[in-house]
Amino acid sequence: MTTNPQAGRAAARAVVQAYHEARFRGDVSAAAATLGEPFRFSSPLMASDSAHDHLAGLEAFLQIVTGVEMVSELYGDTEATLVYDVHTAVPAIGTQRTAEHFHLTGGRIGAIRLIFDATPWHAVMQAAAAAQA
Amino acid sequence: MTTNPQAGRAAARAVVQAYHEARFRGDVSAAAATLGEPFRFSSPLMASDSAHDHLAGLEAFLQIVTGVEMVSELYGDTEATLVYDVHTAVPAIGTQRTAEHFHLTGGRIGAIRLIFDATPWHAVMQAAAAAQA
Repeated sequence: MTTNPQAGRAAARAVVQAYHEARFRGDVSAAAATLGEPFRFSSPLMASDSAHDHLAGLEAFLQIVTGVEMVSELYGDTEATLVYDVHTAVPAIGTQRTAEHFHLTGGRIGAIRLIFDATPWHAVMQAAAAAQA
Repeated sequence: MTTNPQAGRAAARAVVQAYHEARFRGDVSAAAATLGEPFRFSSPLMASDSAHDHLAGLEAFLQIVTGVEMVSELYGDTEATLVYDVHTAVPAIGTQRTAEHFHLTGGRIGAIRLIFDATPWHAVMQAAAAAQA
């Protein structure tokens, strides 16, 4: 329990920025170190209760990422929301506008809610599945 | 220019909360009063440079909304991000997880970036268009 909101915000900022940077440089173990137990992840395409499972797809995802542009980062005592654009090398996806909400428990990330328009992903995933069939 | 971040955050909170409440109770003029000029709106389904155009679709949208659940509201000096669930009466859409980023200029909302998964909307809009054809 943090009694000083300023200190809480600074701590939330530190852990979320550490996660964000580690994740986009593909450093799975540094990213995992910021996640708590229990952990819950949800996005339009998947949900997971496992930090390990959540990070398992990171390497494949990063192969299509050409850049990340932060639009907004706002921090609360035990939460944060980042808004950013992910530039991808997949023309059908293009730039993915993304919002990511973090809930912190005991100084670690206990829940991530990722929000983006998954519309273009469905066609891309179908094409990928067809290519492997 | 706000020199006191606390005062800036309180002002951002006041205008964004006023917009959010007016919008979901269908009060177009109260919502419009919080928007600046110029104004820019973007979502996965549309973009607009006009506050009037942006609010023109509100009444139709509210007809399918059965409830709104705030998940997170975070405020900065000249920005805010809300994360909320919109419960709808359309089974194909269900609950729409939404993030909304606001940029404020001169005490009013100058830009809104709405982020949600538009996947189910495409089928719903096609069905609506087909029904009107």
